[in-house]
Amino acid sequence: MSYKAPVKDLLFNIEHLANIEAVAQLPGCEDAGLDTAQAVLEECARFNEDVVAPLNVVGDTQPSSWKDGVVTTSPGFKEAFKQYAEGGWQGLQHEPEYGGQGLPKTIGAACQEILNSANLSFALCPLLTDGAIEALVTAGSDALKATYLEKLISGQWTGTMNLTEPQAGSDLALVRSRAEPQPDGSYKVFGTKIFITYGEHDMAENIVHLVLARVQGAPEGVKGISLFVVPKFLVGADGTLGDRNDAYCVSIEHKLGIKASPTAVLQFGDHGGAIGYLVGEENRGLEYMFIMMNAARYAVGVQGIAVSERAYQHAVAYARERVQSRPVDGSVKGSATIIHHPDVRRMLMTMRALTEGTRATAITAASAYDAAHRHPDAETRRENQAFYEFLVPLVKGYSTEISQEVTSLGVQVHGGMGFIEETGAAQYYRDCKILTIYEGTTAIQANDLVGRKTSRDGGQVAKAVAAQIEKTEAELKALPGEPAQAVAKALEAARKSYLEVVEFIVANTRENPNAAFAGSVPYLMLAGNLVAGWQLGRALLVATAELAKGNDAGFMQAKITTAHFYAEHLLPRTHALRDAIIGGAHSVMELPMDAY
Amino acid sequence: MSYKAPVKDLLFNIEHLANIEAVAQLPGCEDAGLDTAQAVLEECARFNEDVVAPLNVVGDTQPSSWKDGVVTTSPGFKEAFKQYAEGGWQGLQHEPEYGGQGLPKTIGAACQEILNSANLSFALCPLLTDGAIEALVTAGSDALKATYLEKLISGQWTGTMNLTEPQAGSDLALVRSRAEPQPDGSYKVFGTKIFITYGEHDMAENIVHLVLARVQGAPEGVKGISLFVVPKFLVGADGTLGDRNDAYCVSIEHKLGIKASPTAVLQFGDHGGAIGYLVGEENRGLEYMFIMMNAARYAVGVQGIAVSERAYQHAVAYARERVQSRPVDGSVKGSATIIHHPDVRRMLMTMRALTEGTRATAITAASAYDAAHRHPDAETRRENQAFYEFLVPLVKGYSTEISQEVTSLGVQVHGGMGFIEETGAAQYYRDCKILTIYEGTTAIQANDLVGRKTSRDGGQVAKAVAAQIEKTEAELKALPGEPAQAVAKALEAARKSYLEVVEFIVANTRENPNAAFAGSVPYLMLAGNLVAGWQLGRALLVATAELAKGNDAGFMQAKITTAHFYAEHLLPRTHALRDAIIGGAHSVMELPMDAY
Repeated sequence: MSYKAPVKDLLFNIEHLANIEAVAQLPGCEDAGLDTAQAVLEECARFNEDVVAPLNVVGDTQPSSWKDGVVTTSPGFKEAFKQYAEGGWQGLQHEPEYGGQGLPKTIGAACQEILNSANLSFALCPLLTDGAIEALVTAGSDALKATYLEKLISGQWTGTMNLTEPQAGSDLALVRSRAEPQPDGSYKVFGTKIFITYGEHDMAENIVHLVLARVQGAPEGVKGISLFVVPKFLVGADGTLGDRNDAYCVSIEHKLGIKASPTAVLQFGDHGGAIGYLVGEENRGLEYMFIMMNAARYAVGVQGIAVSERAYQHAVAYARERVQSRPVDGSVKGSATIIHHPDVRRMLMTMRALTEGTRATAITAASAYDAAHRHPDAETRRENQAFYEFLVPLVKGYSTEISQEVTSLGVQVHGGMGFIEETGAAQYYRDCKILTIYEGTTAIQANDLVGRKTSRDGGQVAKAVAAQIEKTEAELKALPGEPAQAVAKALEAARKSYLEVVEFIVANTRENPNAAFAGSVPYLMLAGNLVAGWQLGRALLVATAELAKGNDAGFMQAKITTAHFYAEHLLPRTHALRDAIIGGAHSVMELPMDAY
Repeated sequence: MSYKAPVKDLLFNIEHLANIEAVAQLPGCEDAGLDTAQAVLEECARFNEDVVAPLNVVGDTQPSSWKDGVVTTSPGFKEAFKQYAEGGWQGLQHEPEYGGQGLPKTIGAACQEILNSANLSFALCPLLTDGAIEALVTAGSDALKATYLEKLISGQWTGTMNLTEPQAGSDLALVRSRAEPQPDGSYKVFGTKIFITYGEHDMAENIVHLVLARVQGAPEGVKGISLFVVPKFLVGADGTLGDRNDAYCVSIEHKLGIKASPTAVLQFGDHGGAIGYLVGEENRGLEYMFIMMNAARYAVGVQGIAVSERAYQHAVAYARERVQSRPVDGSVKGSATIIHHPDVRRMLMTMRALTEGTRATAITAASAYDAAHRHPDAETRRENQAFYEFLVPLVKGYSTEISQEVTSLGVQVHGGMGFIEETGAAQYYRDCKILTIYEGTTAIQANDLVGRKTSRDGGQVAKAVAAQIEKTEAELKALPGEPAQAVAKALEAARKSYLEVVEFIVANTRENPNAAFAGSVPYLMLAGNLVAGWQLGRALLVATAELAKGNDAGFMQAKITTAHFYAEHLLPRTHALRDAIIGGAHSVMELPMDAY
């Protein structure tokens, strides 16, 4: 099925929820107003609809393949990536100093969504490259920056993140790869890394691996991990490619989904040692890696929204076309298209509301990021940074968890045809299953939310979010009409459940950690749900005002209806989660381990 | 991973929740007491663990294949089916008159679960054959019974259900296949049927297709559909196989899961007409097909439980073995197996509680079926029939919907390894996706629940179930201890939500059908959840009594804990569903069709 980028909805979010005109007041963003956003998104839509989206099924049916250490990507990927690079898309959000376009995240995130809707597997290569760029920008020496940044930002080379080892997944303390200092200041790197996305491929001239390893004599645990740049091909002083480095792909995985994205096992140093260059200081690797991780976590959250949007479009198209059964209200005599049936509508509305709600959260978070990085006022930066950091685990965790509900509903709307691979709906269901796992599982996001984002400041930021929500409720209550009142009421109830849980988490994280962490994922789901419902509440306020101005009635009315549906159907889940977290803290750990 | 049948838990359900000794009082069930159940289940476990379960991965990696009209099943399937037939397993629940063992459904359902846990794809062939047997027993002429039943019950031949056509899925009114009466009393059948499970294969000598078609001049819609037996090979008067009938498999589907089960497109009558024999009377085909469907719907519900059990076992094994991170409570210094982590425990407990809860519902329903069919007292039969029929959409709908949650959690517990196909967890996630679709989607089950099972009698049976639940609550309240009190409280609250919804459904089905049917699937999920929680509440009562007698303390304590977890973590979802159904009835249909 062809994909049509939801440019109008993205621009609605960028304009009204992310307040792009305020973003355009930030230093360095002067040219990034609504007009720019619109022009970029339209071009992004055209490129991805025409070039990248048609490769989505191709990549699934003809996955990347490995032979004798060489990975051949799916047909068309190499050519499309060349166009992607030439179009300047890799540099969209990156420093103009190194050839990037320096656009704010508020616009960049929307483009990421479009790219990922078009093709999750394809989009992973730029996603990982973004992470490598961020790490080098933040912690790389001038020499490393000079050597690598321009080529990465232009898309001539690509980047990878090498964290996982067979025994070290979520637990990076267990990393065993090691690095030996050499007299010339470089290091020799040895070890096995697994699950390396685009760890080997044929789409770029060079691959810049960012690798976690321990320098000899470093402390145990996460405090002894350093970060290295290990290029596939060594780079001469003049920037030309030299010898092949001792970093080889020994196999790629056979996966449930995202089959076009090669997931590599990389062997470093089996032939004498892979030459690596230290990023920043020794033993601070995890800190730098978190820079990449935070960008990547946000981006994976966007992947969840993106695949949800694609699954929704696919399901709507089928529901409009498939004729089956007579509507229960008798509105059609005889069999009608299945979009007439209430349960099909319920499924489509659930898909739509979850997608629009998580999109609104993500784009709002992006504008907080931009303010946090560029606002002239330090206090404003600090507040926005705290808000953004609170939202990252929600964007990552909630958007990806709901993508599994959305894609499953997408298959269900198709009935028996959904189970047939050629229909295409099943691919989204398979592809999205990785999203709750990589770049930190939902449980890892939830630990972050409980520990660093909620307990550490005694729930201050969490409660500040609630206070903002309360303001939105008051604005909604001042409006006439059933939807606004229903949303205000549902938000108020959900916010109260949320606050009870925040108190519970703050009270228990230290005293009774098993109870707090037993509720960690439910807390993430509750908070993510509430924030998405809140953003749709804000959208309803805007849409009401726009309607009054006579702007785009169909779109604005649909936004109000979607917010209304979200509030009535999805926000009530927050109470079930509260009950489970607070009432059920004990029964999670009650069964002895040997009784399972 | 090897599969171990949960014989102890199945026997607990059979003995205490289904009250097997009462079942053994029913005419014809005199030998079917607990000892028989135990002997049969142990043999069933042995056979399926050793013979059928090892073929599960084989069937996924080497699917059944089609060439020139011939279907070759996955390696080992033919031999295993031969053993299945020789072991008498096909005849377990069928009439001794035709060679069956005549065991009650209470025992048969437990065996079905084991078979399906071992291998969903394999189990589908017997499942469909059961349906064909039921239809012939109920509606077939003596001649048809004499010709077909013994061979089907012995497993020498297998059966299929031919309902779906390209334009007629959930909506059987659209069936176009036609049948022309012949002078000898037979018919010639013409048409295309799709999605025919085991519509062609190499595991049996003959395949007995039960086919829906219209006799010339029959009324339009579902009242003009008749049911025919169309054997792959014609059968002589002496029971020997004769000519190949004009029913050919033109292709099989490429599916998301259950890949070993061949899903056939069958072409009837392209070479002059397929010879068919009318089952029962003309134009009553749908009624007879519902006999098969009802048996099959229950059985598909059991498939949901079965795949959940298998996914649970797989996840537990991994959680016990994979070492990663230090427990938050400091109970282990250094990295520990992940079963120490609260969120892994939450996931495993969710999987366990959903599996045990749905199992308890299914086996309780089976004993109602047995009483409905065999009890000497007509009023008792009627009550049990009504209770069973109310439970069928819950067993089918809820058990299969939750299997998707359970198998998804199963992948999640495995982290990155879950996404690698060789790990095996992903197969359950793929396989189970068909369960909410075939034999009537969840929406079709929910329509049945709303229309025939709830509204038609003004909610009488639905409320009678609530009254029974209230009795269980009272018994729980009389017990000491936190788990019993927590379960009683959660059940009471969930029952009240349920009753509100029942009133809403009864009030709206005719007056405002869009509102009632917009809530149909949520109502099914609410009722299925409540009944499962109730059955675990009953299990808690039994376990408490058994503990007091000093019986099997570990098992009984685990049962109490599982019921406790279910009540605290899963029953609260009922309130979110109630809110969505009652509060959100309007917003489901609010968005105009062209605004999607």
